[in-house]
Amino acid sequence: MNDDGRRAWAYLSRVAEPPCGPLVALIDLVGAPEAAEMVRRREFPEGFEAVADATTGRAAADRAAADLEHVAHLGGRLVTPDDDEWPEYRFQPMAARIPPEAPHHEDEVRELRPVALWVIGEGRIDELLERSVAMVGTRAPSSYGERVTDDFAGDLSAEGFTIVSGGAYGIDGAAHRAALAAEGRTIAFVAGGLDRPYPAGHAGLFRRIAESGVVVSEYPPGTVPGRHRFLNRNRIVGTATGGVVVVEAGFRSGTRNTATWAGRRGVPVCAVPGPVTAATSVTCHQLIRDGARLVSRSSEVIEEVGRIGELALELEVPERPTDGLEGPALRVHDALPARSGLPVSEIASIAGLPARAVMMQLAVLETKGLIRRDGALWRLAN
Amino acid sequence: MNDDGRRAWAYLSRVAEPPCGPLVALIDLVGAPEAAEMVRRREFPEGFEAVADATTGRAAADRAAADLEHVAHLGGRLVTPDDDEWPEYRFQPMAARIPPEAPHHEDEVRELRPVALWVIGEGRIDELLERSVAMVGTRAPSSYGERVTDDFAGDLSAEGFTIVSGGAYGIDGAAHRAALAAEGRTIAFVAGGLDRPYPAGHAGLFRRIAESGVVVSEYPPGTVPGRHRFLNRNRIVGTATGGVVVVEAGFRSGTRNTATWAGRRGVPVCAVPGPVTAATSVTCHQLIRDGARLVSRSSEVIEEVGRIGELALELEVPERPTDGLEGPALRVHDALPARSGLPVSEIASIAGLPARAVMMQLAVLETKGLIRRDGALWRLAN
Repeated sequence: MNDDGRRAWAYLSRVAEPPCGPLVALIDLVGAPEAAEMVRRREFPEGFEAVADATTGRAAADRAAADLEHVAHLGGRLVTPDDDEWPEYRFQPMAARIPPEAPHHEDEVRELRPVALWVIGEGRIDELLERSVAMVGTRAPSSYGERVTDDFAGDLSAEGFTIVSGGAYGIDGAAHRAALAAEGRTIAFVAGGLDRPYPAGHAGLFRRIAESGVVVSEYPPGTVPGRHRFLNRNRIVGTATGGVVVVEAGFRSGTRNTATWAGRRGVPVCAVPGPVTAATSVTCHQLIRDGARLVSRSSEVIEEVGRIGELALELEVPERPTDGLEGPALRVHDALPARSGLPVSEIASIAGLPARAVMMQLAVLETKGLIRRDGALWRLAN
Repeated sequence: MNDDGRRAWAYLSRVAEPPCGPLVALIDLVGAPEAAEMVRRREFPEGFEAVADATTGRAAADRAAADLEHVAHLGGRLVTPDDDEWPEYRFQPMAARIPPEAPHHEDEVRELRPVALWVIGEGRIDELLERSVAMVGTRAPSSYGERVTDDFAGDLSAEGFTIVSGGAYGIDGAAHRAALAAEGRTIAFVAGGLDRPYPAGHAGLFRRIAESGVVVSEYPPGTVPGRHRFLNRNRIVGTATGGVVVVEAGFRSGTRNTATWAGRRGVPVCAVPGPVTAATSVTCHQLIRDGARLVSRSSEVIEEVGRIGELALELEVPERPTDGLEGPALRVHDALPARSGLPVSEIASIAGLPARAVMMQLAVLETKGLIRRDGALWRLAN
C-alpha cells in the first residue's frame, strides 16, 4: 500500500464514529481511496445516504497524515483490511454457531467490523487472535473473582491461548497480568486513542502487554474514552475472539453488552458462577440462565472455545472398593451386617432376592475381596 | 377397605425390595388381595416371572398384621392406592415436560411408583404434595449452603410450598427446619422403617415435622436404612414433587441420583451455583451444565415449579439519570466535557454526528435535565 492509500484509511478511521456499517459497506464497494474521496466531496452513490449523515461532522477535518505520524512516533501502526496482518476471519460470522433462525443481514455483519485498527506492540494481531479467548468482568471484583481470573488466564495461556481483554481495572487487568505471568501473550482492546492510556494507572501494564502482544484501538490518536466508546469497544472484545468468558459481573455490567455482541457473531459465551449471595456474580448467573455455558474449570472453557476435539477431561476422583456396585450386588452387600455373619437364606430375605441370585452375587463380591465366607456364614471383609 | 385388604397391601409392601415395577404391574392387573395370594402361593400369570424372582426371598414370612399393629402403635398408618390420601398424580409422568424423544415405557413409569407408603403425621400426603418442592443436598454443607437453604426454604414456605427432603443431616435438615421456622409444612421421606429414625439425632426433628406434615417411608417397620435404600428413597424425593432444588452437593452426591429420577418423570431440576473453588458446589455446576436450571433466588424456583404464571419478578435496580440513553443521545452526552461548555459544531465533530442530529439530541437531553445551555455553549447540568 502506498502512503496515499494508508492516509485514506486513516482519514476513514476518524471520519465516522464507529460502529459504522454503511461506511464499511461503501469501502467494500469502491475501495478505501475512492471512499475517502467521496466522503470529502460529499458525493455518494445512491443508497449510501447513511454514510453522508455519519460523516457530516468530521468530513472537513483531515488529520490523516498527522495521525499516522503521531502513532508512528508512539511506535505503533495502522492495520487495515489491505494489510496481511488484518484478522478478517475474526470479523465474519461464525456460521456454524449461529442458530439458523437468527436474523442475519449483511448490514449487521458489517457493523461488527472496524474500518481499521490502530495497533501498538510486537505481536501480529492476526496470529494473536487465531487461538484466543476474551476474559472480561467487573472493575471491582471480589478476591474470589481475582483468583478465578488468575487461574483460568494462567491455564489458558499455558495452553497457548491469547488472553484478550479491555485493559480496565479489576478482572481485565487480572487477566492481562496472569497471561504475562504465565509468559503468554495478551491483547488489550482500549476505548480511546493509543496516546491516551486509560486508566492512567495501567500505562505500565500496556507497555508490558506490547512487548509480546498488542494494544489495539479502533480510535485514532487523541480520542478520549467515553461511555459509548467503552460499549463500542466491547463489541470488538466480544466478536474478535474464539470465545468470551465472563468471570464476575454485577448489575449494569458492560459485560452483558460484550456477551450480546458475541451472540450476534455466534461466538460462544461462557460464565463463571459464584455465590448467589454475591452482587459480583449476578450478571454471570443471568447470562447462564439466558443460555451462556457455565464453566467451572479452564478445561471447560477450552472445550467451548478450542479446536474440535479438545474436550474437558473427566475429573479424577479416588475410587472406593464398593464403587460400581449396583442393583442386586449392592443389595446383597448392604444386607451384610457390620460385624457379624449371615447365612444365605437370611441374606436372601433381607435383600429381597432369590437364594440363587444371592449366591451368584456373593461369589462376585468375594472375588472383589469385599466379603468373605466364614463356615456357613458370609461377612464383610473388613 | 377392610382389614384383609389392608393386610394384603402391608404384605405386598414388604415382600419385594423396592422399586419393583413388575409387582406394581401385577397389583394393577389383579388388585392387591389377589396379587398377595398369588405371591403366597407362588402361582403367577404368564409374563410375571419377574415377580416370582423378586418375591422368592420373603414370600413365606407374612408379617403384615404385626407391621400394621406396630405402625399404629407409633401413631402412623399405611397409605395405599386404595386410599383417598394416595397422591396418585405424583407418580404419573409429567407428560408435558418429558421430551418427546425420551424412551417412555409403562414399565419405567411403574418403577417410579411405590407399592404403598408408611406414613406418620398430621398432614394428608396428597394435599401436602400438591404444591411442593424438594430441597436436597450434601450432608456436609458450607455455611453458604446452609444460608441459601434457609433463605429459599423460608421463602418457599411463605409462598405455600411444602418443603420435601430426606431428613438427613446438612441441607436436608436445614430445609426441614427452615420450613418449620416459617410455620410452613414439610415432608421427610426416610430410607428405613418409621420405628428406626435415622439419623438418630433427628428423632426430635421428625416428631416436629409430624406435628403438621408427615414422615414417610416406602419400607415397613424394622427396615434398616442401607445404601441402596437411600438411593431408592431419592427416587421418591425426586419424583413426588413439583420440582427439585439441589443446593449444595459435592462429588458422589446422592443428589445426582435424585436428579436423574426427576428427569425420568419430567420433574424440573434446579441447582444453586456456588464458588467454582468449593467442592460443595461441584455437582450443582455439573447439573447445570447437563441442563438443570440455575436458580439464584427463590422466585426463580417458583417460576420453574409453581403454577403457570408465577414468573420471577425482574430485579429492581436504582435508576441513574443517564439510564436509557443510547445511540446518538449517549454520544452527544458523552461529547460534553466535565466542566466546560461546547458549541454545537464542536459537539458534532466530537460525536461524529450531523449538526442537525446534535441539536435534536441536545433538546432531548435538556428536557431530561441532563444538560443546560449557557449562551452559545452547552454543558452538563451538574
